[in-house]
Amino acid sequence: MDEITFAVLGTGGIGRRALEVSQHKDALTPVAACDRHGTAIDFDGLDVDELLAATEGNIDSGPGDDEIATDGGSGATAADGVGPTQQRDTGGDGVKQHGDGKGVVASSQARASEDPIQDVIDHGDGIDAVLLAVPNYEHDFIPRTADRFLEGGYAGVLIDVLKRSRVIDMLDERSADFEDAGITFVCGAGATPGLLTGAAALAAQSFVEVTEVEIWWGVGLKSGYEDNRGTVREDIAHLPGYDIETARELSDEEIEAIIDDHDGVIEFQDMEHADDVLLERAGICEAEDVTVGGILDVESDAKPTTTTVSVTGRTFDGETATNTFELGDRTSMEANVNGPALGYLSAGVRRNWAGEYGVFGPAELLPRF
Amino acid sequence: MDEITFAVLGTGGIGRRALEVSQHKDALTPVAACDRHGTAIDFDGLDVDELLAATEGNIDSGPGDDEIATDGGSGATAADGVGPTQQRDTGGDGVKQHGDGKGVVASSQARASEDPIQDVIDHGDGIDAVLLAVPNYEHDFIPRTADRFLEGGYAGVLIDVLKRSRVIDMLDERSADFEDAGITFVCGAGATPGLLTGAAALAAQSFVEVTEVEIWWGVGLKSGYEDNRGTVREDIAHLPGYDIETARELSDEEIEAIIDDHDGVIEFQDMEHADDVLLERAGICEAEDVTVGGILDVESDAKPTTTTVSVTGRTFDGETATNTFELGDRTSMEANVNGPALGYLSAGVRRNWAGEYGVFGPAELLPRF
Repeated sequence: MDEITFAVLGTGGIGRRALEVSQHKDALTPVAACDRHGTAIDFDGLDVDELLAATEGNIDSGPGDDEIATDGGSGATAADGVGPTQQRDTGGDGVKQHGDGKGVVASSQARASEDPIQDVIDHGDGIDAVLLAVPNYEHDFIPRTADRFLEGGYAGVLIDVLKRSRVIDMLDERSADFEDAGITFVCGAGATPGLLTGAAALAAQSFVEVTEVEIWWGVGLKSGYEDNRGTVREDIAHLPGYDIETARELSDEEIEAIIDDHDGVIEFQDMEHADDVLLERAGICEAEDVTVGGILDVESDAKPTTTTVSVTGRTFDGETATNTFELGDRTSMEANVNGPALGYLSAGVRRNWAGEYGVFGPAELLPRF
Repeated sequence: MDEITFAVLGTGGIGRRALEVSQHKDALTPVAACDRHGTAIDFDGLDVDELLAATEGNIDSGPGDDEIATDGGSGATAADGVGPTQQRDTGGDGVKQHGDGKGVVASSQARASEDPIQDVIDHGDGIDAVLLAVPNYEHDFIPRTADRFLEGGYAGVLIDVLKRSRVIDMLDERSADFEDAGITFVCGAGATPGLLTGAAALAAQSFVEVTEVEIWWGVGLKSGYEDNRGTVREDIAHLPGYDIETARELSDEEIEAIIDDHDGVIEFQDMEHADDVLLERAGICEAEDVTVGGILDVESDAKPTTTTVSVTGRTFDGETATNTFELGDRTSMEANVNGPALGYLSAGVRRNWAGEYGVFGPAELLPRF
């Protein structure tokens, strides 16, 4: 397969890990990375080691106010995959900031910019795909970011790892615009939705009717907790009595109190996860037949439960059965988000090169290895 | 998605079940079915109930001599999926033959033909995809059948459910011809290879290096044994001391003796299954890192072991883990072959409509539901 050039918007956990994982993929060349402070662009391929080393512990965590966050964003706070800890930025209030320069500018490959997203758009002709590893505190954040690429005349692949069901509809509203522009938008392409959504679509093949899809994740986060406060905050929005807005207003102390109330182990039920609408749009089942939940343990690095997708259905010959897909407990959330994200990115580029534009979900594409 | 018209070559187990399962798929319309004796074609959609009822117990089981078998073939004796019992024709020597007419001709929708394959090719303009549910006793049988479609000027999707590694190379040799002709050939698109090959490709996404893929199937065949002698024969070729030619020479009595020697439960190790080359061509792993085996129980309908694919690899962050995909024990081999086969057929048609031609394996396409 031809070489694929890609950019990452946001150099938080997702963006950084995607750059790191891409070094293991011969066909993928990272050529741009940006955060709200600046942009690194090199069409010969970024020096990922230098960029990661220079910006280690120097993640700008936003989202800060909306206008700032819109400029490239920070650490994909809500744009994670399996469970609450798919990236490393602090997110929310606790901004971590040290080292030379701010954010990506600490890298010798980067330069400060007033509008890093525009830098990427301006170089779009040389970029096959853009991974939107940006925060999604506001539901319309990723759609609005996509609008900037539409307005900027970008033609290629846009891919996110969002996990909010309602965002998919906002992207679908832009489907005709994407088709006109030559944009192939791959949404929800992390771990869940993403890897597990694809697994559900594959597991469904044994059946003529799917009656239930149950996605259940486990994440152990002891050592990563300090770097994932923002994600924990975002996931608290899934707890009874909270929503994404009220969770955003919580002080760090209030969040600590909630965690303590749960003895450090928080179980999530019926999460609003995009898997449901992504499976429905692929014709697999009704959105209401999909349930997503999981357990976050901030006091252990071992997964408190095995991440599993169970697909129950009826076969053409009248039997009812359940096919299951399980992730090994030693696969980290970063591995389960970034491998699939880059695999879906490659699959999306192939679709784009074939002239297929519009919005694609992970249940419509087999990620490439 | 637009309606897809398809034909089945061979009205044995695979062909019949594919027609049956397609009735559950709104987007799929079967318009042609043939065996060596005749052809049924109706672009308004075949009456599947009538065709299946009229030909029940009337399967011509070939392959008989090569020339005859080449004309549409019979029951996909070797073209099955998970394990040895993916179809119902008797295969090999034990030809079952009764009812009015022979084979598909027993259906009021069919007419006798000297060259049923040519009938399908001649109507190829109205057929988006052709499922090659034909026997594969000779390794080059499916490739030679593909040659007939090339020579006949067919442009569309050809799909098989073969399970012999060496056949893939023979199809790859024709890749340029397929591309010139506008043919998208999807090979090995049953259960294994097929469903489980795709599951392995998806499970690999957590890793940057896949070190082992183990596919293990279980099939219980008590009630289906009489109808699957041909398949048991073909699978005996996988046992130590046998190959596909010597197994073909065995008398029914010799086969019974082999089954008795195993007390009705035959375990297969290191089968030459196309999963290995199909995963290698998709860049997932080396063919030698793939092992396929399973257990056939002809004295019980319960699966003697759970069909599982295990993918072991190394993550970008240095862990080694195994992701697994398991099929529910109550999913029959027919369900696990024909659902995926039609799903891959639909995915192949979408590729074909997008102008992507050549040879595709199941590790390159996510089947559509």
